[in-house]
Amino acid sequence: MTEPDPQALAEAVAAAMQANDRVFHALGMRRLEVGPGHAAITMTVREDMLNGHDICHGGMLFALADTAFAYAGNAYNHVAVSSGADVTFVNAAEPGETLTAVAEERSRRGRTGVYDVTVSGREGRLIALFRCRSHRLNAKIVPDLDAQGEPS
Amino acid sequence: MTEPDPQALAEAVAAAMQANDRVFHALGMRRLEVGPGHAAITMTVREDMLNGHDICHGGMLFALADTAFAYAGNAYNHVAVSSGADVTFVNAAEPGETLTAVAEERSRRGRTGVYDVTVSGREGRLIALFRCRSHRLNAKIVPDLDAQGEPS
Amino acid sequence: MTEPDPQALAEAVAAAMQANDRVFHALGMRRLEVGPGHAAITMTVREDMLNGHDICHGGMLFALADTAFAYAGNAYNHVAVSSGADVTFVNAAEPGETLTAVAEERSRRGRTGVYDVTVSGREGRLIALFRCRSHRLNAKIVPDLDAQGEPS
Amino acid sequence: MTEPDPQALAEAVAAAMQANDRVFHALGMRRLEVGPGHAAITMTVREDMLNGHDICHGGMLFALADTAFAYAGNAYNHVAVSSGADVTFVNAAEPGETLTAVAEERSRRGRTGVYDVTVSGREGRLIALFRCRSHRLNAKIVPDLDAQGEPS
Repeated sequence: MTEPDPQALAEAVAAAMQANDRVFHALGMRRLEVGPGHAAITMTVREDMLNGHDICHGGMLFALADTAFAYAGNAYNHVAVSSGADVTFVNAAEPGETLTAVAEERSRRGRTGVYDVTVSGREGRLIALFRCRSHRLNAKIVPDLDAQGEPS
Repeated sequence: MTEPDPQALAEAVAAAMQANDRVFHALGMRRLEVGPGHAAITMTVREDMLNGHDICHGGMLFALADTAFAYAGNAYNHVAVSSGADVTFVNAAEPGETLTAVAEERSRRGRTGVYDVTVSGREGRLIALFRCRSHRLNAKIVPDLDAQGEPS
Repeated sequence: MTEPDPQALAEAVAAAMQANDRVFHALGMRRLEVGPGHAAITMTVREDMLNGHDICHGGMLFALADTAFAYAGNAYNHVAVSSGADVTFVNAAEPGETLTAVAEERSRRGRTGVYDVTVSGREGRLIALFRCRSHRLNAKIVPDLDAQGEPS
Repeated sequence: MTEPDPQALAEAVAAAMQANDRVFHALGMRRLEVGPGHAAITMTVREDMLNGHDICHGGMLFALADTAFAYAGNAYNHVAVSSGADVTFVNAAEPGETLTAVAEERSRRGRTGVYDVTVSGREGRLIALFRCRSHRLNAKIVPDLDAQGEPS
């Protein structure tokens, strides 16, 4: 038996997570891309995402970045939860602005991983930088796939 | 003329911010307490706050903590925005669990401040620790109050 | 058989670590206090600890804070190494200034812990805030003590 | 008059900082490379850089990374000090291991900047990841250079 395709596995995991991810849908996110250790998610800043200063609430930016991180970090089909993050806010995101979060793996060793997530806005301007830490649990998201990409 | 009362000012600022804070209302937050450099905010984990692992989405926890931080850090009536944060997730928050975020000032110097926010759940169990960094702008949230607590 | 005394264990661990800690001695550190989950270490800023701006190098401040964290986090006699930290520099430390780092446990769960370390200088002014993350290994620092505080 | 050469300016700044940087010399660091917003510094782990667990002390790793950050962030000839950092330790650095810290600018806006520093060891294995935050002061390191690379 040959190894399952990592890209097909990453997509199957993302589809399963997305189907069940209430925040993903509540905030109108869309998945642009996913693969082993990387993902891109987009979202447009709505009126109900604003804080008392009339800019996008930090929690909504975190939700977007955390989602990109989750799809990148779970792509190997081992449940990986967030153990923490470092956040730097660079520019305020404005109402109506479409944001894209790109997550990339920086390290994976034992049960822990590090993923950098860059959130950009209109014309690619930098909104925020996240460095997210993952912790792997002993559980899977989807049944293992065989070499044909079908559940084995 | 005597100095305005810092506690009355903190409450006036919080009321003004809260009136305009779309995320505060969308997530069903309630303000328990506010004063110069500290605040406590509570929220109950709803179905639409869950992620694909059926636990409270990290972005919703961040939104709660960031709100407690914002009310603590703006209490002096100088607009203070978040420049970043460090987050540690300790226990997963579950559907229906009521969370409380308590923000306390650790440092304020020049334009920058540091606020520790502790998020606890049922029976006081620790959910997450946040260390939030503020950056002060040259703007006020409410008109200055005089010593009688009225706009001057 | 009764439980060994946690305070005696913390002191035995600290003594063993200190005997072997080359950086502790090279930087002239002194241990003021240690106990289960807490420690205080002091150090005076020397000429050879300065950076190109004539202030104490961040690495020397980190070494001091990391040491207080290590003695606090290893006090239970399980080897705990640092998995990461968040650092905020508040005031520059000056040549000749005596610094004190106080570490306190904020969380300990499974193999991971969180310790806050506050570094203060002359007249208690705040120099830096550290939030240190520990990861416990399957090893001990000293042989277990019995209830009389002797190796069993 | 034409603009001064950014690369020549970065090198002049680094030379001036290095001449005065007591920790750089005390820890046997060497500068491999510097330019606008980037730098690479190397150091070999000595006996007197070990902690009580016989591995390189976190403070020594921080000193190396902080130095690469400082040379990258000051390369524009505006004094930029560290306001904080996020650190992730991935692998322990061992006695005799030669470490290289590479700093790259991720953001620079107003007075603040973000620099990622990657510390690698033998055969390029990852030792630690740093995300360093800079704050610019109103001071210069060297006199401004003219287009010929000479002090003007």
